[in-house]
Amino acid sequence: MNGNSQQSTKCSDSVRASRFVDKNRLWNRHMEMAAIGAIPGNGVNRQALSLEDIAARKLLISWAAARHYEIAMDGIGNLFVRRTGNEPELAPVMTGSHMDSQPMGGRFDGIYGVLAGLEIMEALDEAGVQTRRPIDLVAWTNEEGSRFAPGAMGSMVFTGSRPLDDFLGVKDQNGITLSDALADTIAAIPNCASHEFATPVAAYVEAHIEQGPLLEQSGSTIGVVTGIQGFRWFNVEVTGEAAHAGTTPISLRRDALQTAVACISALNALIREETDTLRFTIGRLDVTPNTPNTVPCRAAFSIDLRHPDQVVLERVGDLVEATCRTACIRCAVKVTEIATRSPCVFNPSMVDSVEEAAARLGLPSMRMPSGAFHDALFMHEICPTGMVFVPCEKGISHNPAENAAPDDLVAGARVLLATLVELANA
Amino acid sequence: MNGNSQQSTKCSDSVRASRFVDKNRLWNRHMEMAAIGAIPGNGVNRQALSLEDIAARKLLISWAAARHYEIAMDGIGNLFVRRTGNEPELAPVMTGSHMDSQPMGGRFDGIYGVLAGLEIMEALDEAGVQTRRPIDLVAWTNEEGSRFAPGAMGSMVFTGSRPLDDFLGVKDQNGITLSDALADTIAAIPNCASHEFATPVAAYVEAHIEQGPLLEQSGSTIGVVTGIQGFRWFNVEVTGEAAHAGTTPISLRRDALQTAVACISALNALIREETDTLRFTIGRLDVTPNTPNTVPCRAAFSIDLRHPDQVVLERVGDLVEATCRTACIRCAVKVTEIATRSPCVFNPSMVDSVEEAAARLGLPSMRMPSGAFHDALFMHEICPTGMVFVPCEKGISHNPAENAAPDDLVAGARVLLATLVELANA
Repeated sequence: MNGNSQQSTKCSDSVRASRFVDKNRLWNRHMEMAAIGAIPGNGVNRQALSLEDIAARKLLISWAAARHYEIAMDGIGNLFVRRTGNEPELAPVMTGSHMDSQPMGGRFDGIYGVLAGLEIMEALDEAGVQTRRPIDLVAWTNEEGSRFAPGAMGSMVFTGSRPLDDFLGVKDQNGITLSDALADTIAAIPNCASHEFATPVAAYVEAHIEQGPLLEQSGSTIGVVTGIQGFRWFNVEVTGEAAHAGTTPISLRRDALQTAVACISALNALIREETDTLRFTIGRLDVTPNTPNTVPCRAAFSIDLRHPDQVVLERVGDLVEATCRTACIRCAVKVTEIATRSPCVFNPSMVDSVEEAAARLGLPSMRMPSGAFHDALFMHEICPTGMVFVPCEKGISHNPAENAAPDDLVAGARVLLATLVELANA
Repeated sequence: MNGNSQQSTKCSDSVRASRFVDKNRLWNRHMEMAAIGAIPGNGVNRQALSLEDIAARKLLISWAAARHYEIAMDGIGNLFVRRTGNEPELAPVMTGSHMDSQPMGGRFDGIYGVLAGLEIMEALDEAGVQTRRPIDLVAWTNEEGSRFAPGAMGSMVFTGSRPLDDFLGVKDQNGITLSDALADTIAAIPNCASHEFATPVAAYVEAHIEQGPLLEQSGSTIGVVTGIQGFRWFNVEVTGEAAHAGTTPISLRRDALQTAVACISALNALIREETDTLRFTIGRLDVTPNTPNTVPCRAAFSIDLRHPDQVVLERVGDLVEATCRTACIRCAVKVTEIATRSPCVFNPSMVDSVEEAAARLGLPSMRMPSGAFHDALFMHEICPTGMVFVPCEKGISHNPAENAAPDDLVAGARVLLATLVELANA
């Protein structure tokens, strides 16, 4: 048997095994997960390290345990499920995503990458396929960053991009620290082996819904992701002085909300550009004391800035603080950059691997950058990384109306399987 | 004895009785009340119909009961304390204010008028002065409107300005209805006689801290209030669509917060005027889902508009809705006027009564309108009404730093006593 025929045997192995991806099992598990933290309109609210997150972890573990996969958790709660390989001491190939959601999130964002990863392990079992390297499924802690900012904490800490200590003191809106929520989560999941940070990984491939409209518009089933745009996250805190709404002349007020409005207007002017490529979002604004007849003494808001070009990201982001200071009306303004990441371009061999897997399976694909960031952004720092996108209805995401077709979810899982089997046998 | 000497006897009676106002008792009671709902920086958070409000009611009742005053409560929780008169069947003269506070309120707003009212009853007891008419002290429910909007609900319902049914369904930020909070409050205060709405009142005089800087600046101890500026309160609700902050182009967003910012900017332009007389406040702004990386689908804000001239109030207020609609960016905007009141001018005889009482006591006074609204605004509709202002430090109010001098509080209570005794004997 020469090299070529060996290669073609492996390829046909992965194509054959991909047929064991089970559409009903994959879909039903999405629906079971969606019941945890369900909100009106088919949505999901499953905040990082919440009781719902714990319930989702337990459900995933129950499925993995039924297959006797190895289960472990690291110090920030990243959950690892291993299907071992013929050479178990080798670095694994890894797949996965996250199980936390936005407060008004959907049924597919993140959880699809986790359930697709479990699905391919089971499909390989049923196909009787052994791989040379182990395959690890990971569920990253707190990708969304909506309860504890910033997002992607789990993958940042695992990859050594940021130390755990940086995040332990971060508080949610109720004043609960990440440290406490993490301790509660770890305590709720006993009998779980412990996993180290920064263990070697041979390659990482993450499946995800696109969260944008391009695949649907082009009629492609598979998005071959070429990289991820960079981002900069800021918190802006405005401090003024509380005063009586009926007695205090406007010219004497130190109105924190009016300064926040002036800052946002000035930032809108700063970020305006013709191509509409830059993403600029004020997603969060908290006013104190937030009562109709008191001039607000405090207003705090978030800024989420993204662009595929590092030069633009630097130029605009570096002007945020000065823009806010100039707009300030008799208040104090404090601008803090809480997270940043340069745009990343995936390793071309990984992009090719995903594209070729789709081709072998006869699935129409297109190359595209990712508008959203993902844990893959950080894994890219420590190993060859790629992503598989599947379409979502009208591109809607971070919204209860988020939807995806069962056939598309299966297609993505099959591409993921074919890609990972190749990488695990390399 | 002719009419004149009778008059002068009464006058000297009230001057003599006013010396029984006890500075320490009045101050210490302020400090006891301030301990209920105390917040950092000497502030108070005592929301209407909260556990703190109930505790304040019980404390007031304990003081009143020790003097064997009659205690009663009406259907919206307004609390009445009566010191009877020589002709108990006559309509009483009434004084009082409110015990609820802003979320970040001070130790004097409202509660001063209640404690000053109790103080003068006790001073009259100690001076051995009987009045012809009963004197009623009232603690109005929910003047602030910060937990349940709008404010002044208690006096509005008592005076028949609005029916109780209009307010029973109003919810606080936790979804608790006024109806439920009221039932809890009434149940917590048993053995309290029931009081009707709209009972006849001969005259109403309310003591209050100024909540503005004029008395302090002019060196006057007593503000003789000539009337209250009118107000219009609006709620603006903007509905957009949640979307992913990383993938959704700005030109396609239906960003509810950005529309709210555009509305507020447009309203700022609308209300601009050279005299700085108009009061315009966005005190409250709630964003949904309020997470950094989701385009907000909803933003709701309050508008508090006040002016002493009804013509201005109508012209500007009537443009609020159109201004918001014009500013709207791909969202839906709903503007609701939740409360309104024309400016009021107090009965000249009442203004004279307060001014003359200050003069008899040798206290420097000045006439002034009230920038804040008060329950007196509604009492003015059903009986001759006046107000007594005392200075507060730097005019600061609706702020934990709110402060007042014990001597000024005593001076205001003495003027209140002298005024009420004249009215109660008329």
